[in-house]
Amino acid sequence: MTKINCEISYDGTRFSGYQIQPWSRTVQGELEKALAKIHKGAPIGIHASGRTDKGVHAKAQMAHFESMYNLTPAEWKRAINSLLPSDIYVNEAIDVPGSFHARFDVVEKEYRYFIWNEQEKDVFKQNYVYQFPFALDICAIQQACRHLEGSHDFTSFSSAKAAVKGSKVRTLYEVSCRRDGNQIVFVLRGDGFLYHMVRIIAGTLLDVGRGRLHPESMKDIFAKRDRQEAGDTLPPQGLYLWDVRYEPSAFAE
Amino acid sequence: MTKINCEISYDGTRFSGYQIQPWSRTVQGELEKALAKIHKGAPIGIHASGRTDKGVHAKAQMAHFESMYNLTPAEWKRAINSLLPSDIYVNEAIDVPGSFHARFDVVEKEYRYFIWNEQEKDVFKQNYVYQFPFALDICAIQQACRHLEGSHDFTSFSSAKAAVKGSKVRTLYEVSCRRDGNQIVFVLRGDGFLYHMVRIIAGTLLDVGRGRLHPESMKDIFAKRDRQEAGDTLPPQGLYLWDVRYEPSAFAE
Repeated sequence: MTKINCEISYDGTRFSGYQIQPWSRTVQGELEKALAKIHKGAPIGIHASGRTDKGVHAKAQMAHFESMYNLTPAEWKRAINSLLPSDIYVNEAIDVPGSFHARFDVVEKEYRYFIWNEQEKDVFKQNYVYQFPFALDICAIQQACRHLEGSHDFTSFSSAKAAVKGSKVRTLYEVSCRRDGNQIVFVLRGDGFLYHMVRIIAGTLLDVGRGRLHPESMKDIFAKRDRQEAGDTLPPQGLYLWDVRYEPSAFAE
Repeated sequence: MTKINCEISYDGTRFSGYQIQPWSRTVQGELEKALAKIHKGAPIGIHASGRTDKGVHAKAQMAHFESMYNLTPAEWKRAINSLLPSDIYVNEAIDVPGSFHARFDVVEKEYRYFIWNEQEKDVFKQNYVYQFPFALDICAIQQACRHLEGSHDFTSFSSAKAAVKGSKVRTLYEVSCRRDGNQIVFVLRGDGFLYHMVRIIAGTLLDVGRGRLHPESMKDIFAKRDRQEAGDTLPPQGLYLWDVRYEPSAFAE
């Protein structure tokens, strides 16, 4: 058996999210359909670094599978891409040791959230950014970002519906905000993310940018451990799973 | 009666083209549906500068309509946009004299064709550019562009299926090619365009860029008046109706 890990990009617009579901078009469903075709109909499970919601995009999702076939990574990439629909693409395939797991071995994930800070609508951006028409104080947002970095209990910044057992403490290595013309991007890197965490943090940062929340108030929001204290959950189309990182040792035999 | 001219942008991906057709989702159909709602169900015809095909985009299509209502241009813009789907947007509405016609008064149109000159697929660009993986000689393309400018019989560069009566002579004021990183754009400005003319010119310019055609051969292609002599018709997703221009006098009472 060989184990292959794929770096995958997808435009989330026309998917009901990553995870396979009956009767819905999902990224996992399309990947497993392609792998089954390569394996003459035999079902091949694919294991991703995590799910993404309906409408959320990926620049670099990671997912592994096992096969009895002995193809080179370049052959796997070509074979799978030839069977995928036009909104999913395998950027790269690599051989990994049998011990590798695309989800359990993750040490860091990076998400980016893109805001189009403009009053006039741009029809070409509607599925790829979140349009926000009001003026934003980027300095205030950057101050709030500093309070979000580090290890915290992110209960207030995760969906109250989430059924996570155990700790809601996560460590964010980077929370930053950059403006480039009318485009604003939030970059979040961390050891793990709770359900809706990036979209709620992004919504809270917009409240800071509009002057509705003080940058210092992030501390109070953490302390209250109450979803009601943070800002809105922003819509999915601005969100991108940007990168997934592993220890080099995860790739060693 | 007032006459209003609208500058409209649309993402052509999910439309069966501009022109209204039964059972199909069209740009004209969506615009007329919005206008009928504003006019309590009364049908209001909208007259565009011309059609665009399935999958072709517009940054600035122009279209006029007449109404008995007396709204300001800003009110028209807001009213129509509030009823349009998310992939069409009225950028601007202006009052025009009763003599104005969005199609008959056109003096110049500009189209742009975008090429993504990269081997690796970008899932986020698939509906918005044409991906072409081979190396291109931009200087040779620019030489060919110079031969395309001016007044010519464009029979060889238009669809053989087109049912145009009369002259196929058109004047191109500008045919140019620019590279910006991996993106190449062809800009075409002229007094009129035959069916598929921009997409066939773009396909012919790619043949020049690959060395399959000499820049000088544009002259022979014109002379033969035969669609078979020119290059392929490139797909619609790289094509944008970029601007439509009128004489200032067309807007004068």
